[in-house]
Amino acid sequence: MHTIQELQDYINIKLAEQQFTGNPPLLYEPINYTLSQGGKRMRPMLTLLACEMFGGNIENAVYPSIGLEIFHNFTLLHDDIMDKAPIRRGKETVYKKWNINIAILSGDTMFALAYEYMLKTDSHFISRILPVLNQTAIEVCEGQQYDMNFETDGDITIADYIEMIRLKTAVLLGASLKIGAIVGGADDVNANHIYDFGINIGLAFQLKDDLLDVYADVEKFGKITGGDIVTNKKTFLYLKAFDLANETQSERLQHLFNLPETEHNAKVNGVKALYDELNIEQLCKEEMQRYYEKAFTALDKINVSNQQKQELMDFAEQLIGRES
Amino acid sequence: MHTIQELQDYINIKLAEQQFTGNPPLLYEPINYTLSQGGKRMRPMLTLLACEMFGGNIENAVYPSIGLEIFHNFTLLHDDIMDKAPIRRGKETVYKKWNINIAILSGDTMFALAYEYMLKTDSHFISRILPVLNQTAIEVCEGQQYDMNFETDGDITIADYIEMIRLKTAVLLGASLKIGAIVGGADDVNANHIYDFGINIGLAFQLKDDLLDVYADVEKFGKITGGDIVTNKKTFLYLKAFDLANETQSERLQHLFNLPETEHNAKVNGVKALYDELNIEQLCKEEMQRYYEKAFTALDKINVSNQQKQELMDFAEQLIGRES
Repeated sequence: MHTIQELQDYINIKLAEQQFTGNPPLLYEPINYTLSQGGKRMRPMLTLLACEMFGGNIENAVYPSIGLEIFHNFTLLHDDIMDKAPIRRGKETVYKKWNINIAILSGDTMFALAYEYMLKTDSHFISRILPVLNQTAIEVCEGQQYDMNFETDGDITIADYIEMIRLKTAVLLGASLKIGAIVGGADDVNANHIYDFGINIGLAFQLKDDLLDVYADVEKFGKITGGDIVTNKKTFLYLKAFDLANETQSERLQHLFNLPETEHNAKVNGVKALYDELNIEQLCKEEMQRYYEKAFTALDKINVSNQQKQELMDFAEQLIGRES
Repeated sequence: MHTIQELQDYINIKLAEQQFTGNPPLLYEPINYTLSQGGKRMRPMLTLLACEMFGGNIENAVYPSIGLEIFHNFTLLHDDIMDKAPIRRGKETVYKKWNINIAILSGDTMFALAYEYMLKTDSHFISRILPVLNQTAIEVCEGQQYDMNFETDGDITIADYIEMIRLKTAVLLGASLKIGAIVGGADDVNANHIYDFGINIGLAFQLKDDLLDVYADVEKFGKITGGDIVTNKKTFLYLKAFDLANETQSERLQHLFNLPETEHNAKVNGVKALYDELNIEQLCKEEMQRYYEKAFTALDKINVSNQQKQELMDFAEQLIGRES
């Protein structure tokens, strides 16, 4: 078994070996730019890890794992247009560096390339892994649409929020594991268990993200906290606070959320104080813990030795314990 | 064998039976809106026609043919954003009726749905038809990027233009025929011949489009002519005229192309007069005829009876003879 770090390094080497070139160059330059920027390579790493967990050779999972990384980056290209995000991984986003049309079209090309890499997998597995990518692709679009709707919708429940992050984030982690498991030799029952593990770890992962945005140690986090508060993002913390607030607290929250972005500090500190009154940090940690435990219940059901599961358990612990 | 009209009707019935529904509705409404608008259904019709030509049952080709129609409409959704096109098929385009973000995301969903329909095909054929769609999808993106580049690039040759329309338009017609042929039982050699037929008919089809834009009978055409001239679109006619023009004619053309859109009539009439001096209509017809003949050379090579080829020949004749 390889360690997580070894798998990440392996992915980066394999990705660097691929040629994403062609004409016209304007179509392919943004693809190379995007795929050469690094990132955690979490999805392809999970594919390789799941493959090995079931006794498969990671070489057989390289192409689908690259396909999943390309797919993920395609969604980022399009999301950045929709979210008007100027920076990703410390660099200008594609639509900002080039323009919206090029970001749309390079993204579309990456979507097709993702399928091309899926098809390079041993043909035995094609009919089982393609429907997983298909369903995931549709669900990720649904999740992004919900996320956009939430910006203007007034009555979002916590259940709505969990469903949105399941679609937008968790299903691709589940799919990456499931596809790796299939290529590694897992039957459908076990492939579905590892998918469930991925869904629940994905939900815990996103809740951790919400927490870090408010409560991270700024030095370790590497960026300023409170971004979600300043932009009124309806995270678990935000929705839970509105759920629990009494009338006065609700009015205070509403007032704080109406403050302009220029009053950054007053807004962030005011909201944090209210979160503290309502014990929101602890409640979010408990919610996260629930998904974390559900993930381990799914992992328990998988029919391989605990030793074979060790890397995935380590990964889950790192994800939850991370400080950035 | 069914007639073209019968196949079109059949597609429309089958498309109407599909449920493109889901949540959030904002993601699926534009998909239904787009797919229920009609259009010629040329691509799925070609798939069914090719399937039958090789002795296959059109029922086996319904799903991939719908997949191709969805794919085509996905490209239109995204192209309309890039081209800022407000109207398609007499109705507001999706990005205009909703917004750019929704058009991007509904388009992405349609791309995934196209693959989903491909996967509904008899599993024997999946490994042969998916690479065709993949390559086509990438090439269509390349074609659209070339088309956008041409708006600002100064030195486009006729060869560049032919390559652009091959990628943007012809490959999808070729792919629709090839996929239908495969499902109908064709071997790779014959499937490639019908693909070549599609490429060349596609090129002739686009040249016919360029011609109609300038020379159509306005009543039969159903819209005003000269649109390409007014927007300085670098069509075959435009490029051929600049190729053949002497210095004075070149200056006149340049002057005419610099006229603003408000001088619609002066611009269109002036350019048409110059095209007439240079015999451009005839030259374009000859070029079209060359591709038409190449298409029939490819059709000749296909190893089925002439009777089996009759519908495809009729289709080609209709395409070239059409007046709108």
